[in-house]
Amino acid sequence: MRTCYTGEVCKDHLDQTVTLFGWVHRRRDHGGVIFIDLRDRAGLAQVVVDPDNVEAFATAERIRNEFCVRITGLVRLRPEGTNNAELASGEVEILCREIEILNASVTPPFQLDDDNLSETTRLTHRVLDLRRPAMQYNLMLRYKVTMAVRRYLDSLGFIDIETPMLTKSTPEGARDYLVPSRVNAGQFFALPQSPQLFKQMLMVSGFDRYYQITKCFRDEDLRADRQPEFTQIDCETSFLNEEEIRGIFEGMVRHVFSEVQQVALPETFPTMTWGEAMQRYGSDKPDLRVKLEFTDVADLMKDVDFKVFSAPANDPKSRVVALRIPGGGSMPRSEIDAYTKFVGIYGAKGLAYIKVNDAAAIPEGLQSPIVKNIHVDALKALIERTGAQSGDLIFFGADKIRVVNDAIGALRVKIGHSEFGREHGLFEASWKPLWVIDFPMFEYDEEEGRYFAAHHPFTSPKDGHEDYLASDPSRALAKAYDLVLNGWEIGGGSVRIHRADVQSKVFSALNIGEEEAREKFGFLLDALQYGAPPHGGVAFGLDRLVTMMTGAESIRDVIAFPKTQRAQCLLTQAPSAVDEKQLRELHIRLRAAEAK
Amino acid sequence: MRTCYTGEVCKDHLDQTVTLFGWVHRRRDHGGVIFIDLRDRAGLAQVVVDPDNVEAFATAERIRNEFCVRITGLVRLRPEGTNNAELASGEVEILCREIEILNASVTPPFQLDDDNLSETTRLTHRVLDLRRPAMQYNLMLRYKVTMAVRRYLDSLGFIDIETPMLTKSTPEGARDYLVPSRVNAGQFFALPQSPQLFKQMLMVSGFDRYYQITKCFRDEDLRADRQPEFTQIDCETSFLNEEEIRGIFEGMVRHVFSEVQQVALPETFPTMTWGEAMQRYGSDKPDLRVKLEFTDVADLMKDVDFKVFSAPANDPKSRVVALRIPGGGSMPRSEIDAYTKFVGIYGAKGLAYIKVNDAAAIPEGLQSPIVKNIHVDALKALIERTGAQSGDLIFFGADKIRVVNDAIGALRVKIGHSEFGREHGLFEASWKPLWVIDFPMFEYDEEEGRYFAAHHPFTSPKDGHEDYLASDPSRALAKAYDLVLNGWEIGGGSVRIHRADVQSKVFSALNIGEEEAREKFGFLLDALQYGAPPHGGVAFGLDRLVTMMTGAESIRDVIAFPKTQRAQCLLTQAPSAVDEKQLRELHIRLRAAEAK
Repeated sequence: MRTCYTGEVCKDHLDQTVTLFGWVHRRRDHGGVIFIDLRDRAGLAQVVVDPDNVEAFATAERIRNEFCVRITGLVRLRPEGTNNAELASGEVEILCREIEILNASVTPPFQLDDDNLSETTRLTHRVLDLRRPAMQYNLMLRYKVTMAVRRYLDSLGFIDIETPMLTKSTPEGARDYLVPSRVNAGQFFALPQSPQLFKQMLMVSGFDRYYQITKCFRDEDLRADRQPEFTQIDCETSFLNEEEIRGIFEGMVRHVFSEVQQVALPETFPTMTWGEAMQRYGSDKPDLRVKLEFTDVADLMKDVDFKVFSAPANDPKSRVVALRIPGGGSMPRSEIDAYTKFVGIYGAKGLAYIKVNDAAAIPEGLQSPIVKNIHVDALKALIERTGAQSGDLIFFGADKIRVVNDAIGALRVKIGHSEFGREHGLFEASWKPLWVIDFPMFEYDEEEGRYFAAHHPFTSPKDGHEDYLASDPSRALAKAYDLVLNGWEIGGGSVRIHRADVQSKVFSALNIGEEEAREKFGFLLDALQYGAPPHGGVAFGLDRLVTMMTGAESIRDVIAFPKTQRAQCLLTQAPSAVDEKQLRELHIRLRAAEAK
Repeated sequence: MRTCYTGEVCKDHLDQTVTLFGWVHRRRDHGGVIFIDLRDRAGLAQVVVDPDNVEAFATAERIRNEFCVRITGLVRLRPEGTNNAELASGEVEILCREIEILNASVTPPFQLDDDNLSETTRLTHRVLDLRRPAMQYNLMLRYKVTMAVRRYLDSLGFIDIETPMLTKSTPEGARDYLVPSRVNAGQFFALPQSPQLFKQMLMVSGFDRYYQITKCFRDEDLRADRQPEFTQIDCETSFLNEEEIRGIFEGMVRHVFSEVQQVALPETFPTMTWGEAMQRYGSDKPDLRVKLEFTDVADLMKDVDFKVFSAPANDPKSRVVALRIPGGGSMPRSEIDAYTKFVGIYGAKGLAYIKVNDAAAIPEGLQSPIVKNIHVDALKALIERTGAQSGDLIFFGADKIRVVNDAIGALRVKIGHSEFGREHGLFEASWKPLWVIDFPMFEYDEEEGRYFAAHHPFTSPKDGHEDYLASDPSRALAKAYDLVLNGWEIGGGSVRIHRADVQSKVFSALNIGEEEAREKFGFLLDALQYGAPPHGGVAFGLDRLVTMMTGAESIRDVIAFPKTQRAQCLLTQAPSAVDEKQLRELHIRLRAAEAK
């Protein structure tokens, strides 16, 4: 057995004989001596093979990169001046006494320390890619996060209960992955999009506090940060109100950061209503590291001689906002042009701006093609309300509410993260958690002409908002909350409906008729009739949380065997064709095959 | 918030005002006072509602079974003589000050303490069924087992790494559950039967020690102790030999029993070769609580005038064994008849036996229709070899090896567990773990005329057995091991093949051609080329382990939402029909629909 991991050899082992297992990270011959950088999951150590040791030296000569070896040797100090401060083992080296090749390696298709590999190469050779220290670090950190979560929740009486993977298709929400049943011809299981209804039923069953770190599935077109299967930290508790629930789970996030990365998050996480977040940042997941805010100015622009502003200013479905950039007067024209193009991605038709050369001289001190079309009163009020100073820049968004929020919201973040933003103090490098609360119950879909659940249909309306369900769904706010960290939604949840009558009203507001509700959610409605307790919970996206904590570029870097954006596994070649016999047993047939 | 769980109220709370949340387990009126047995996941407590408290009393009068309530009251001693020793809270009661109905309940379809419910009723109303204290206990214990496992493995440096649920179909082994791909028309994912190949690849990637408590899937016809989805404690480690691996995992089982149930399992688990287990018990998972063993007697019966014995005695594919039942001479005829019928289930054509009335007088002291056909020398040798004493009974099995093993193996267990067996000291109530080792590499399938892997095709042959792979596969033994506990296989594993050339030889022995091997397992063969470390592991069936520990009757009693034997969820009505649109998106069509 090994004495310790290779990466752990240090001065404590001085003059001891150690046995190590690992891989040859690099071998070099230097002055007739062979040096091996031996690697295992804990790191690297330097092994010296002296030609005096004839047998070991002969073996070492045959060794190539990525050979798997056992090495026994004496730990000694490195010669003066050759310490490697980057390694935990950097003060010592192992004088090799014995070396055994446990398994040879053909030449790897790439160097492990090559940082410029395509993702296709990395995913095809994932087994080697995972040997890279960065991937070892990511998956180790991921494990530490889950263990910190488990220990925290365990200490509060949460118990892990497994819910089914083969469950019922309820085509509300995202597209399901389906699994044909062999025993029940013509019927299908669905893989769970979340354990939502099961965890609610566990609350009705009296388990009081539940959690699960579990796979969920959505068959959606994949974006950069999406995977067909993803992992949720899924939690639910009974008998607590919204504040108490948030308290438990911000405690969990604090615990995880403190345990795993020794980072102290704020003692209390700030809260902000959804309405305020949309107003100030145009986003329900504002990145509070960015020190920029929207200023609503529609009321000032109603009567200006500039249609681009006055039209939306007079349309209740539109919005006109200013985004003041302190010091932005020095922003080069090329950068402004780039931002103009950038907001186009979000549907903005242009990007109006004003340079504030002299805030005390209006209008002469303002530089912009649009200034001449806006009367002085409006300009004065604008400067006053935004608090703009000489040397600042003001960007404008004027369009449908969603376009303004998306475009100027993204612009705000883009500028904050830019070199300009960092140089001008518009960005604070830190962890900025925020609870966004009081979400609307429903979102109206213009195309389909009906309301959809903003969170999900099991979310409780706020106290006093129950009546809006029938009278004016758009006014109803929910006991829903998202935990936002540096502009990423890392978790979200709600207090659930625990009364069957309220649940029925919500289904009505969603245009889900009684019969349809029974068919899809009958088991939930039944469960609510038997003394369901008040309950609520939250779900965190583990992949995303770990991506943030590791600073990885993509969630694929924190998943051992991820799928590509075409939902394929390049390592195992899944999905793949299957035998006709298998299809026959499942009572299905390929459509493509028929067409032939 | 609650003061504590209802079931935890005790003398420590005397004279304190407590707030409890829970369900009304029972309400009774007695002498003008209302008694409520309040229940939560921790147990029951008695609440007394006095008519003096007009408001609370009025509320209590409206309360019915399974209402969900909040109760605030004063903890006091129960009146003398009314203590309930069965409850942790049995010395105290709560004098109700306030009671709030959090949610009413319609009348449940059954009493929670009704122990005679059909499984259909229980699974249809699973939400209520899970409120039963036994089910709460089972799932709580299941959680404690997983947490004890995690803590133990964590302390040894094992890390939990998630492997994919959407993976590749490799139709070797059981039938796969398939998932049609929408993006890749005509292709399918398979749900994993186990993470076997992924965990091996993680070893090749250098993670050194892996575990996962994860769902696995097999689309097989369901027996009593099978589920379409089941949970495995899946582990793998590098650089350890077979004994070291077994040492780690018997330590895990010891830790779990000690932590969760304060049961001390043996310091070292005994090992027995597969060959010895089959010889002595006719089973590779012998229940060592049963004090009965096979005695092989074929050599004695080769020349007897009793075809039933002499024919199999002279056939190398058959077996003749005696099973001595100490004290069995007193076994009533009806019981022997029942056993004769019982062995028929396993294909035995009858059940010969001899009553040993006087072991010193042979043949007169032996009572049996078959004695006259067996010569005295054979009878004498039989009595001597079995060690039979006066008053014993000897059963015989004489048939093809498999029939004898199955029939007499089952008979051995049946008698051991019977009232007779318990009364005659043939059964020792205790935990009897056993490692069964040295399994054969292959099993020959007469029907298909080829070898199959006894464990799986990635199992390493024992040292020195590599040459048998080509020359005589039936002789090759494997570095495979099963952990057996009281006759149940709770875990199994092996040292894996870490060299590509050995893996190829095993594929050859299994008649898997080079091309087929590449197509199905190319990624594994590739991985083995890059300095794969020696590695091995084990997988435990969590459902079965917890079933044993709880003493539950079925694994369905330790799973929150199990499937029936027709692979259906009676609660949610899964599987179910899906929309034509969903099928079209998945490029499949129902066969049944075409036939119409």
